[in-house]
Amino acid sequence: MSRFRFAPIAAALPATIPFTGPETLERRRGAPFLARLGANENGFGPSPLAVEAMARAASEIWKYGDPESHELRHALAAHHGVAPENIMLGEGIDALLGLLARLMIAPGEVVVTSAGAYPTFNYHVAGYGGTLRTVPYLDDAEDPDALLDATVETGARLTYLANPDNPMGSWHDGARIEAMVRALPETALLILDEAYAEFAPASAIPHIEAENPNVIRFRTFSKAYGMAGARVGYAIGPAELIAGFDRIRNHFGMNRAAQIGALAALADQNWLQEVVAQVAAARDRIGTIAAANGLRALPSATNFVAVDCGRDASYARALLDALEAQGIFLRMPGVAPMNRCIRISCGPATELDHLAEALPKALATLD
Amino acid sequence: MSRFRFAPIAAALPATIPFTGPETLERRRGAPFLARLGANENGFGPSPLAVEAMARAASEIWKYGDPESHELRHALAAHHGVAPENIMLGEGIDALLGLLARLMIAPGEVVVTSAGAYPTFNYHVAGYGGTLRTVPYLDDAEDPDALLDATVETGARLTYLANPDNPMGSWHDGARIEAMVRALPETALLILDEAYAEFAPASAIPHIEAENPNVIRFRTFSKAYGMAGARVGYAIGPAELIAGFDRIRNHFGMNRAAQIGALAALADQNWLQEVVAQVAAARDRIGTIAAANGLRALPSATNFVAVDCGRDASYARALLDALEAQGIFLRMPGVAPMNRCIRISCGPATELDHLAEALPKALATLD
Repeated sequence: MSRFRFAPIAAALPATIPFTGPETLERRRGAPFLARLGANENGFGPSPLAVEAMARAASEIWKYGDPESHELRHALAAHHGVAPENIMLGEGIDALLGLLARLMIAPGEVVVTSAGAYPTFNYHVAGYGGTLRTVPYLDDAEDPDALLDATVETGARLTYLANPDNPMGSWHDGARIEAMVRALPETALLILDEAYAEFAPASAIPHIEAENPNVIRFRTFSKAYGMAGARVGYAIGPAELIAGFDRIRNHFGMNRAAQIGALAALADQNWLQEVVAQVAAARDRIGTIAAANGLRALPSATNFVAVDCGRDASYARALLDALEAQGIFLRMPGVAPMNRCIRISCGPATELDHLAEALPKALATLD
Repeated sequence: MSRFRFAPIAAALPATIPFTGPETLERRRGAPFLARLGANENGFGPSPLAVEAMARAASEIWKYGDPESHELRHALAAHHGVAPENIMLGEGIDALLGLLARLMIAPGEVVVTSAGAYPTFNYHVAGYGGTLRTVPYLDDAEDPDALLDATVETGARLTYLANPDNPMGSWHDGARIEAMVRALPETALLILDEAYAEFAPASAIPHIEAENPNVIRFRTFSKAYGMAGARVGYAIGPAELIAGFDRIRNHFGMNRAAQIGALAALADQNWLQEVVAQVAAARDRIGTIAAANGLRALPSATNFVAVDCGRDASYARALLDALEAQGIFLRMPGVAPMNRCIRISCGPATELDHLAEALPKALATLD
């Protein structure tokens, strides 16, 4: 029994720490990883112009960031062809998902997602007293039809879908997402997580008006722009919904150097395209490494590859552990049948060299 | 009537944007400020070692920050002579106050603070459905006795006190805070905001065991360490309460370069002491400038000075506006009788030169 009586929702939450970072694993094993390929970070890094801008901003860090992120918001609006009022910046998609949950979820309200989809979204739903209704993946992809059916059936006002998907890397055609949006009940809001959109084929990106009242999209500088540690994400949605964030957000919460870095990164679309090409090459290389070891890489429209280990979850887990023992940091899906796979982020060649060397050794330690 | 039905607490919150940054004011006036002295930022800046560490960290920003902020947490524990389990890092005190409100406040619950004290705390209390009970300042200082009485009378579990105080710069002896803590009801938790502690005389800092179940303290790298734009604050409190943050916080929310910069800043205590001395000199200079213009600077244990303009709130507001028109960014207290004052942050000499030049001109424009 705690000496501290937490508020009702917080009191009902698990006391365990829900997320483990690679640094924690490194401290446990007593050595740094040779290859950091578990968190879908982008080891090709941010634009040199963004690095330079952030380095320059360091000496001005005594100033709070602009609470409106005005320049970045306007630049993103121009980039996406929407109004600045359709954009809300936040400390990564994670923070924005938390704010959206807080803004929308009445305690006990049902929220729809896929079993095995982004755990941080589930964490926020539970964290604001929502109840999750999950539907299964279909053929290693999120299933828009099942999500739609569950939304209709439960009367849910929030439905989460990532396209492309994490942790499987699968994706749907934009037209299929558009059809799902058209079929949504009037009261439903699709949370379309497009964290990996820049890696996907153009055909995977749906055309949705920013003022469509049934969709809020999320994008980030953490993945293709290579700035995960900066914490810059943004929502695109109807102005009236976007304005709701101003009621509850931490207005001075953005790191000033991150704002400046993101602006520079956005302006360097050439770098972005180079990185996207390098990531595509790394995806192919991971496929080759997997195949050379009798494993099968699944198709991916992201900066990671789910590799089917061909057996059950405990085998995949054992392989993950054996790779970790050799200094390779990876993660794996949490739910069957996707948890027959391990998930490998697309890193630079030297990191993949370590993977290529460690994988046969790790496999040899298993029965 | 909104198309979007927000959750009950969010729906009841004001739709207006509660905070205005200096950049917004600059955009409105169409020119940058000559002196940025309104947000209690520290224009003397962070340690050059911190700047260098952040600049170096820019190229590694593709990595997420350590969700445990392990190194920084351990360094802070050593610095304060407490256990790492007594420390929680967050994206500034603002974010941590929000998390504490979320962790502790049941909807409708009464929370005690002083009328005119930190508005962001009030914003978070309202944001989680709490009800504020305020007591007046006494002699331009927060009143521990009145806060204690209101806590006892309402049975409040949360009571906010900043020592030194913002916006007045006043402070209490540590012994007085210790006496207040001893007198708190068993169920009460004092939120002791020590954002400005490093500027205060040692006698103002109470001696409180980290495991004292009635106190949680907040410190920051935004003020004396000169890193407001980095967003690094921390709580010191009983391990069981501190662990509660892990249920709800955004685990990967910290900017990685900010973590690294704060660690370097903490290690450079010489720089900190130099800055504290420069701030003290700037306080004196603000007093001299005020006196030369017939105004009276109040005593301060912070990096800002409340200057008594000798008349009412509309006069102080008019002076603030006249100074803003001349390129001087300041703020003022929001509640009578403290709002007879304007609040001036301690900046470098060139900024205070601008203030010295603008103040007589601004006064001359008033009746």
